[in-house]
Amino acid sequence: MEIPTIDDILKAHKLISPFIHKTPLLSSKSINQMLGAEIYFKCENLQKVGAFKFRGACNSVFSLTDEQAKNGVATHSSGNHAQALALAAKMRGIPAYIVVPNNAPNVKKKAIEGYGAEVTYCEPTLKARETTLNAVVEKTGANFIHPYDNPKVIAGQGTAALEAFEQIQAIDIMMAPVGGGGLLSGTSIASKAISPKTLVYAGEPKNADDAFRSFYSGEFVESSNPKTIADGLLTSLSKRTYQIIKQNVDAIFTAQEETIVKAMQLIWERMKIIVEPSSAVPLAAIMENLETFKGKKIVIIVSGGNVELSNLPFV
Amino acid sequence: MEIPTIDDILKAHKLISPFIHKTPLLSSKSINQMLGAEIYFKCENLQKVGAFKFRGACNSVFSLTDEQAKNGVATHSSGNHAQALALAAKMRGIPAYIVVPNNAPNVKKKAIEGYGAEVTYCEPTLKARETTLNAVVEKTGANFIHPYDNPKVIAGQGTAALEAFEQIQAIDIMMAPVGGGGLLSGTSIASKAISPKTLVYAGEPKNADDAFRSFYSGEFVESSNPKTIADGLLTSLSKRTYQIIKQNVDAIFTAQEETIVKAMQLIWERMKIIVEPSSAVPLAAIMENLETFKGKKIVIIVSGGNVELSNLPFV
Repeated sequence: MEIPTIDDILKAHKLISPFIHKTPLLSSKSINQMLGAEIYFKCENLQKVGAFKFRGACNSVFSLTDEQAKNGVATHSSGNHAQALALAAKMRGIPAYIVVPNNAPNVKKKAIEGYGAEVTYCEPTLKARETTLNAVVEKTGANFIHPYDNPKVIAGQGTAALEAFEQIQAIDIMMAPVGGGGLLSGTSIASKAISPKTLVYAGEPKNADDAFRSFYSGEFVESSNPKTIADGLLTSLSKRTYQIIKQNVDAIFTAQEETIVKAMQLIWERMKIIVEPSSAVPLAAIMENLETFKGKKIVIIVSGGNVELSNLPFV
Repeated sequence: MEIPTIDDILKAHKLISPFIHKTPLLSSKSINQMLGAEIYFKCENLQKVGAFKFRGACNSVFSLTDEQAKNGVATHSSGNHAQALALAAKMRGIPAYIVVPNNAPNVKKKAIEGYGAEVTYCEPTLKARETTLNAVVEKTGANFIHPYDNPKVIAGQGTAALEAFEQIQAIDIMMAPVGGGGLLSGTSIASKAISPKTLVYAGEPKNADDAFRSFYSGEFVESSNPKTIADGLLTSLSKRTYQIIKQNVDAIFTAQEETIVKAMQLIWERMKIIVEPSSAVPLAAIMENLETFKGKKIVIIVSGGNVELSNLPFV
């Protein structure tokens, strides 16, 4: 099982730098005063396609040899990874084949098609997604790029933390949300290599706490049918991301649904940036554990900003 | 009538730099492709108090001598200027007296009080605001800081454009929204001094087009009871801002209400930043005049991001 190293992350950053935004690190005095900590937000919501996923997708696509690349890339997803992969493929000038469940919101279908991907619709079951994807890969010879269980993807996601360490010094805590664990894996590998003293924490919805349970029980468990507003964090860890997280992460904190909404609203109102619920989970975890974070200098990787403006939780 | 110069703006920038955010210049490939131009957004919505107004307020407050400052500052406003002045005064450790119409939204009242200002409520008429303010000034000896008809305020607002010229080269068009004209005045003075070739344009709501009418008729006119969603642009020019704008601005474009909402939604969805309707007016003006802006490198000063999340126009 291949585990990426800091060298892979450094290499990824060099490879993808011409294509990605170097996103700003923003802070809010009023949030800091309210919570008694010094928090910096690494704004991957301002990344291309509005999510950190573009980093991993870009690294996967541009790491392919010309020979590999010519058949394109494929994945099954209706979320940010699908859009990210579609755009990265478009930038390299190769085809992207995306398998999308037919119940995905229209706005997401349109976005994926808008990036020029070839979309195949399937029934909204995991089995249908996998079967359809296999058929697409068999027919086209495309390279399957898993949304998180892929060393190139993980290395790409780690470049956000890498940049944060360039942008600011002496970080006490580096924090990311955890779903499938791609972002947290890359973040933790980068952090432990660059700044061993920095603690790496994760935030996870209490209603989808497979990573929390795996981490603290020492036994790999998967979520079963989790329900959370943080819809980017519904997936479970893979064996690979579990192993990386077990080795590099210092603690996982969970957050309740109502705190996630409050944290999201706080970011919108005070930071004036649009973040999706998943991005608010680390801040929510801080809000539920104020003593632990008191006086600390914290970087939160803001995962993305893709939300339906017509369906906001705080109205 | 004192008109600020580029030296005043440079001096202002030096004075306020320790207190303000140097805001990022963000762009969106998809917006650029859609509109056929290269647009950079100078994000004053990410400024302290969520608006460019903090620059002018800061310059006014920190330009006072100790002798002047000790009695504090005063203004009448329920908007961004009130919050900006309150925070700037708090930073200098002097009192801020704000006269607020008693029908102002609760959220704004709370925000102003939250910055530690002493708030006096009055009837929601211009006469009551002025009478109450005069009484407050007489009683306290505070320095009245007008929201835009003030050379220090105008010089402070000009620092946003100043920074943009440091952040990016060869700007064809520098664009700002226009209400009372403080931002546009400062922006135009900075632009004409630093880059005489750069055209300075303004965007104004068609429903509050006093600046447009004054500019093109050559005669100073005021708005009467304007109604626009861009509630930061309801005020009319002053004689001072009119004179500056007449001298330094190359054109004013108006935008319809529905285009303003569309432009605002486009910025939220594609840029993942929260902007108030006033900030979307320049982009709306571009959308209504695509041929004029085709292929141009444009900077838009995004004025602010203070909106009621429970009352969004696009749901």
